[in-house]
Parts: sequence; C-alpha cells; structure tokens
Amino acid sequence: MTTDPDLLSNARSERVRSVRSLGRRAVRERQRLFVVEGPQGVRELLSYAGSVARDLYLTPSAAERHADIVGLAEQAGVRVRPCTDEVLAAMTDTPHPQGMIAVAAPVDVPLAEALAAVGDGFVAVLTNVRDPGNAGTVLRAADAFGASAVLVSDASVDIYNPKVVRSTVGSLFHLPVSVGTPVAELLAACQAAGLRILAADGSGTTSLPDADLSVPHAWVMGNEAWGLEPEVRDLCDDVVSIPIVRAESLNLAMAATVCLHASSSRMLLP
Amino acid sequence: MTTDPDLLSNARSERVRSVRSLGRRAVRERQRLFVVEGPQGVRELLSYAGSVARDLYLTPSAAERHADIVGLAEQAGVRVRPCTDEVLAAMTDTPHPQGMIAVAAPVDVPLAEALAAVGDGFVAVLTNVRDPGNAGTVLRAADAFGASAVLVSDASVDIYNPKVVRSTVGSLFHLPVSVGTPVAELLAACQAAGLRILAADGSGTTSLPDADLSVPHAWVMGNEAWGLEPEVRDLCDDVVSIPIVRAESLNLAMAATVCLHASSSRMLLP
Repeated sequence: MTTDPDLLSNARSERVRSVRSLGRRAVRERQRLFVVEGPQGVRELLSYAGSVARDLYLTPSAAERHADIVGLAEQAGVRVRPCTDEVLAAMTDTPHPQGMIAVAAPVDVPLAEALAAVGDGFVAVLTNVRDPGNAGTVLRAADAFGASAVLVSDASVDIYNPKVVRSTVGSLFHLPVSVGTPVAELLAACQAAGLRILAADGSGTTSLPDADLSVPHAWVMGNEAWGLEPEVRDLCDDVVSIPIVRAESLNLAMAATVCLHASSSRMLLP
Repeated sequence: MTTDPDLLSNARSERVRSVRSLGRRAVRERQRLFVVEGPQGVRELLSYAGSVARDLYLTPSAAERHADIVGLAEQAGVRVRPCTDEVLAAMTDTPHPQGMIAVAAPVDVPLAEALAAVGDGFVAVLTNVRDPGNAGTVLRAADAFGASAVLVSDASVDIYNPKVVRSTVGSLFHLPVSVGTPVAELLAACQAAGLRILAADGSGTTSLPDADLSVPHAWVMGNEAWGLEPEVRDLCDDVVSIPIVRAESLNLAMAATVCLHASSSRMLLP
C-alpha cells in the first residue's frame, strides 16, 4: 500500500509548480518526465507502461469512481497522491483533467528497437508534423489499424506535449514509438530494415488502390499542409495520393487514417 | 465597383459589435447571418455560394495579397469593406482571421432538395454530433469523397458555428447541406428516398468490408463517443463497424473518414 494518507491541498506548493512546469518542453526534456491526464490515458499508461509511471495525483472522488486505476497504480508501485480539485487544476493547463493526472518517464524506444518490431507489418513515420492534435490522431490511427511502430523525426512536435498525449487517448503506450531521429537517417534506417517507403502526398502519381501494400512498408506523413519537402520525397520508393472527388485536400489526420486503414485492410485483416 | 473608400478603424463601432455578436448561435439564428473567416473559406464562399455573401471585411494588405478574392466579391455584388487589423480582430474570437472575414446568409437547403441531389450516390447524416471540429471534418470528408449531401439532425452542433465553418475549409459551400430535422424524420425521409441506412458504430456486427455499399446509401454518424441511441440504431438497415486491431475505438472524425472513403472507393472511383 503506497497511498499517501495526506490530502495535498496547497495549490501553491513546490510540488504543484514542479508538475505544472512539465507543460514546457524544455522542462520535460531536462527532467525526463511528462504528464498524462484523465482516467482513460492514466489507465492505459498503468496497464501498458506501468514501469515508467512515477506519481498518480487524483481527487478523492476520482479515486472512488476509478478504484481499478488506484489498484493498477498500487500494483505498479506508483505513489498515489490524493489531492484537491484546486491542486489538480493548478498542475495542468487543462480545464478538466477529469480528476486525475499521472507523472511518468518517457516511453519512447531507440529507433533500432522500434524497427525490430516491424516484422511483416507497417509503420507510420511523422516528419515535420507540428500540430499536437494531428500527431495524436496519427498515433491513434496507427494503434487502431495495427501499425507495428510509430517513428517521429526530430523536426516534429514533442509527443509528450500534453495535447498530443491527451489526443492519443492511451495509444502512445500501446506500440513502440521512437523520436528525435533526423528524417534522412530515419528513412535510411527504414530502407535498411527492408521497408518499402511510401510518401502520402496529394501530389502523388500512384493512387492508393494501386499502391503496393503487400510488402512491409513505412507511410511517411509530412507537415500540416500535407506537403513533403522534395528532399524527403526523393528518399521514398513511391508517392501515393488518395483519390478524392472534391475539396482541395484532406488534412493530415484524415489522410493518415485512410492510408493506415488501407494497410491494415491489406496486411492484417482476414 | 462596390469598394468602400473609407477604412473602418473604430473597433468599438456598432458594426463591429454586430458582426462579433454572430459568434452566438441565438444571434445567428435571429439575424440569419454567419461569419466565414480567412481567405480559403471566403474564396470558396464567393466561388460556390456568392449569392448569399453580404459583406467582405479585409485589411488593405490582405486585399493586396488576395486580389482574386476582391474580384470575386465585386463580381458577386458583395460590399468590400477595408478595415484595420484591430477592427478585424474585434469582429471575431479567432486570434488570426488571416486578414479577412465575410458575413453571409445561411447556405443550407430544405431536406427534400438535399435528398433530390443524391441520385446514385451516398450521403452523410450527422446525429448528435456536438464537437465543432468533428462536424467540420465530417463535412470535409463528405466533400472530398464525393458524398451527394450532408444531412444534419436538429440535435447536432450548429454548422454556422465559427469553429465548424473554419474546420470545413470551404467544404460547407461545395455540396447541399440540410439542417434541423429531427433524426427519426430524417431517417424516414432517407428511406423514402430509397437510401439504405447504414449506422457507423463500433458495436456493429457487419464489418465494413462486408457492408453493401453498391446501392445508394446514407451513413449515420452518432455522437462523439461514437454511440448511437438504440432508437436511432433500430431505424437503420445495418450497423457497420470498422475492423480495428488495437485501441479502444476510432474517434468520430476518423470513423467518418474511413466510411465515406469506402463509399467513394466502391461507388465513385474507377
């Protein structure tokens, strides 16, 4: 039993300031910690990556509603810290962290480890993706559609940004994610691992139904305007576009969803 | 030439307050007006629905950058009102309306007119969709994948909410949209029009690859938890789920994207 008997009630304490400071990327990187908000994310963290979880802050009413999560935290040896609504609100920028947050160490793995997980499957590669919601949705789609890993280049949004973590709704903890590799190096490593590199880009001359998804492959998603730099495109084996009838283009999250669904349909589903 | 020679510079004027008040649904409904922000949305409004546009407010620098839009406005007989950055900022809640906004009358059409457009195609039906970004993405997907119309039930978010308008990036003006019909009546009308009614729901027993998309059909999207009320489900001919490998569920926007893409692939593309 690691439950702290004392309710944390000082919203101006050093601890509160310290957790709140994890909203900043520089602090997250220096401290090697990040924040997971809300019961669904915390449950997935504890279930899939309990060893990186450090502290669970929750209100007494959330503890009552989510006894399963408190149980998972205790099993994982995580410190359970009851606190007031006010303390919780002061720890994050989120208007409603739904009664709990957890502080955890990073879950990303070295690129080689992520690539070793690919097997006969496919991966999602994020290059220059800047919007947290888009990055989160790509992670969620990769998870839902059974990608083997997600590889994030050095020029993308921080996957530990609270908005990314929130929008993955736990998917961040379900599959290997690597971060921080320069894109050229990342694609070279994919190629060396035997993956066919497919750029998803509205300008592609290969239409998605004609793309070869029968071999292990990597989907490269570019930045929000859904454009890939020419240098990156040149490193790809094929540039694939999604046939559309109207509208200027799909947004990044929609395009990634369609491409990863196509891979899942062709490689993984009966 | 309808360009107003005077630069609007009083951010506290009656006019500014009046435009700003269109951020509220009750005011939009009483005045039968709404706001379109940014060059991309305004360009699509003027190109596809110029007759409903009333006023174009833009900064001198935006007018210079987007001479094509000023030309479209003049052709459509829209009043072009140069204004300062300060006036534009005071007219909306958006931090960056990118130099221009337009005020327009509603573009929705009666349900019968939207259904008459269906032909051999498919439509998207939104019931109880509450999140503006989700509704906007469904509209965008419906547009991209060639749906004949979008039908929005009375219990959904207002499609003239600035966040919906913004996230459709002009798609709102590309295809017939009907609003405000109670869901049971809406589905009865779809059935009477000969459409097969498919509910998109994670609990569905028909898997998407097995769904009959060869006949004209309506995709019914439920609320954000991607659940449909049992009464609504009972009105549908089939309940279809997207096969997923991991993750609890897809979000509404992702599910709609996949379903509408599937319809497009089977009905519209070579």
